[in-house]
Amino acid sequence: MKKNLAEFIGTFWLVFGGCGSALLAAGFPNVGIGLAGVSLAFGLTVLTMAYSIGHISGAHLNPAVTIGLWVGGRFDAKGVLPYIISQVAGGILAATALYFIVTGNGSPIGSFAANGYGEHSPGQYSLLAAILTEFIMTFMFLIIILGATDEKAPKGFAGLAIGLALTLIHLVSIPVTNTSVNPARSISQALFVGDWALAQLWVFIVVPIAGAVVAGIVYKELSK
Amino acid sequence: MKKNLAEFIGTFWLVFGGCGSALLAAGFPNVGIGLAGVSLAFGLTVLTMAYSIGHISGAHLNPAVTIGLWVGGRFDAKGVLPYIISQVAGGILAATALYFIVTGNGSPIGSFAANGYGEHSPGQYSLLAAILTEFIMTFMFLIIILGATDEKAPKGFAGLAIGLALTLIHLVSIPVTNTSVNPARSISQALFVGDWALAQLWVFIVVPIAGAVVAGIVYKELSK
Amino acid sequence: MKKNLAEFIGTFWLVFGGCGSALLAAGFPNVGIGLAGVSLAFGLTVLTMAYSIGHISGAHLNPAVTIGLWVGGRFDAKGVLPYIISQVAGGILAATALYFIVTGNGSPIGSFAANGYGEHSPGQYSLLAAILTEFIMTFMFLIIILGATDEKAPKGFAGLAIGLALTLIHLVSIPVTNTSVNPARSISQALFVGDWALAQLWVFIVVPIAGAVVAGIVYKELSK
Amino acid sequence: MKKNLAEFIGTFWLVFGGCGSALLAAGFPNVGIGLAGVSLAFGLTVLTMAYSIGHISGAHLNPAVTIGLWVGGRFDAKGVLPYIISQVAGGILAATALYFIVTGNGSPIGSFAANGYGEHSPGQYSLLAAILTEFIMTFMFLIIILGATDEKAPKGFAGLAIGLALTLIHLVSIPVTNTSVNPARSISQALFVGDWALAQLWVFIVVPIAGAVVAGIVYKELSK
Repeated sequence: MKKNLAEFIGTFWLVFGGCGSALLAAGFPNVGIGLAGVSLAFGLTVLTMAYSIGHISGAHLNPAVTIGLWVGGRFDAKGVLPYIISQVAGGILAATALYFIVTGNGSPIGSFAANGYGEHSPGQYSLLAAILTEFIMTFMFLIIILGATDEKAPKGFAGLAIGLALTLIHLVSIPVTNTSVNPARSISQALFVGDWALAQLWVFIVVPIAGAVVAGIVYKELSK
Repeated sequence: MKKNLAEFIGTFWLVFGGCGSALLAAGFPNVGIGLAGVSLAFGLTVLTMAYSIGHISGAHLNPAVTIGLWVGGRFDAKGVLPYIISQVAGGILAATALYFIVTGNGSPIGSFAANGYGEHSPGQYSLLAAILTEFIMTFMFLIIILGATDEKAPKGFAGLAIGLALTLIHLVSIPVTNTSVNPARSISQALFVGDWALAQLWVFIVVPIAGAVVAGIVYKELSK
Repeated sequence: MKKNLAEFIGTFWLVFGGCGSALLAAGFPNVGIGLAGVSLAFGLTVLTMAYSIGHISGAHLNPAVTIGLWVGGRFDAKGVLPYIISQVAGGILAATALYFIVTGNGSPIGSFAANGYGEHSPGQYSLLAAILTEFIMTFMFLIIILGATDEKAPKGFAGLAIGLALTLIHLVSIPVTNTSVNPARSISQALFVGDWALAQLWVFIVVPIAGAVVAGIVYKELSK
Repeated sequence: MKKNLAEFIGTFWLVFGGCGSALLAAGFPNVGIGLAGVSLAFGLTVLTMAYSIGHISGAHLNPAVTIGLWVGGRFDAKGVLPYIISQVAGGILAATALYFIVTGNGSPIGSFAANGYGEHSPGQYSLLAAILTEFIMTFMFLIIILGATDEKAPKGFAGLAIGLALTLIHLVSIPVTNTSVNPARSISQALFVGDWALAQLWVFIVVPIAGAVVAGIVYKELSK
């Protein structure tokens, strides 16, 4: 129960901090943080949670991570569904809080921080480019998570490596899909945008999970 | 006494470095550091103090942190008031030094780095948005502090996680309130601005402390 | 075999993340990550691989690094060629994936992220400036790698120092040569650009290796 | 002798990387790294040297640091002069290399990366503002160095804290003095600029050393 609460709080933080930085600060006139600032924010949500609640729940904060760790033999099957529910719920609460803050100066939410492809990709990238990007990014994210938490890796540094991996992923891929690699993050935003965001949501659920599953299998071989 | 001196120096550094970066470098023509640079600066004041004076005073540098740690059972009641006094005094000395430097090229201090809501919010966010933002941010800041300094957390990494948490908080929330989460920081600037900054100051004292108190209670449950 | 697969995956990540950030996000309108974001991305590819696959292959991800470590007495001669082949192959796969993504919104690849000097230097720097820069940068990169992985250096921090060294190298030298210090990275891009990029490629193979060899010799003396 | 060589190489790197990023990349059209990128670069020169040659020489890379550590009882008197000579020499070699690279596209060196006040301050700050800024910054830099290398501080993290302290210092103070806190860095640039840079150089030798000396005395009291 405490583990699920930790995942709920942690995923709240990931969406509130990551998507919040994009919605509130990325395009602020003259001194906005830009995509680099948003990338840093997403990574730091994970880094800060890894070091503070990692010892409670492992700080997955992401259904794809939970599934990838299960496939990779690092997480028990019976914890998967409760974790995913907690993560999605935490993300939705964060989106709700962001809704009230973002509209607090009279602005509309527009496309919020929803993920998209084609005409809804920030840089108009195709569905194929979106799938390729999300697959590779989630695959590598899980390789890094599985590798950095391997007992042979340096102790204590996993939170740093994993958090900064998410920063790196965003530095590259925001223009392509607005970067998901995390179904909980994508669901939370799509619910508020509706319409096209819900129609395209399957990509940001299916592809990250597929990338994570393949990484779980590959890392098992790599570390034998 | 040495602990209080350390808190005095440390909070001096937080205000001098954090607010100083905002006042001197954020909007510098063409190559200014922007809100991302200011966010990094605030975080690094805490990171650098955590590793250098943390072993002396714990490097709270913030009345809300001191109160949250006390509620969370990590800090002795009789140290609370002396710490807060030292922090506020350190902040005021820093604001004084900044006053002389900032005006050293003939510039006025304008709104200094004061916190505000409504028409004094950098992005004109409402009082409700300001309260929601400051509460969530300080709540999560204390969850991170309490979690990262938990004896079950990886040793040595707390200063990194806590400092970068403050960076993350600023990456998101400068446009809303100019980011307080720290009454000592807010007081130091409001004293020089007077007027509206003093009138709005209660928000940046009451709300961060409320967020910290709730976090102290929640973390106790979470870590049982 | 597992080591070579790890080098293949790791160098894939270095090129995909580093060059990908440059191609997709550096010049994104209004909120692009700029050269600072690209610098951070390159560094984080190494940092994340160091902590996740470092315990498998050492995470060289760079023929110049492999050769420098061999000269410095840290890597066995018979592993050199297989590592270099794996690195170059991983880089080419990454360039191929980037080709499909970058062109996925109808954009041409232009000069991709190829390295160059003279009229193909981002800032039109001469061949002499390019050689001097690449030599110094790779020399110092190897000094840092050899020093940070020395048994007398603090345990666990090598991945942080080495990754951020690559960030620093890019912060300085992208305008001069688009920054190589890594023949595998340069080859991967030149193959897709052809023409002038292939004609200038020798500089970005010969000079980084020369810098690495000299560093291997110097560090041996320095650490005696 | 090896220690002095390490200081020579390390200070070369500080000036080459820090000043180099300012001269080559800060104002690059559209995607320049700005003052935030330069701040990061300066900090990373120290961070990378701390973890790679720290175990050889302590990686002072700065006459004010060497003097402050001596006053603080951490460094032997007879090493002070050889260290300072090595540092200044390394800085000058770096400035020479930068001279050839920077002019390698036909650009003049202009004011190079020299420090200045009054009309030669990037933001036209007065001599008083310059002195106040350099004194406070070097004072705090030494407090951080002395604190983070204290035997009571977390092991291994000193290089991170000290490097990022230099980043923080630059994030705040480049607009005031172009940031010195390091006589070796200032001398290296002033020699190439001559004229006003040499005339103002005394400030960037005397004030950083004064700040470091006072910090050495204060920290001794603080840590008793």
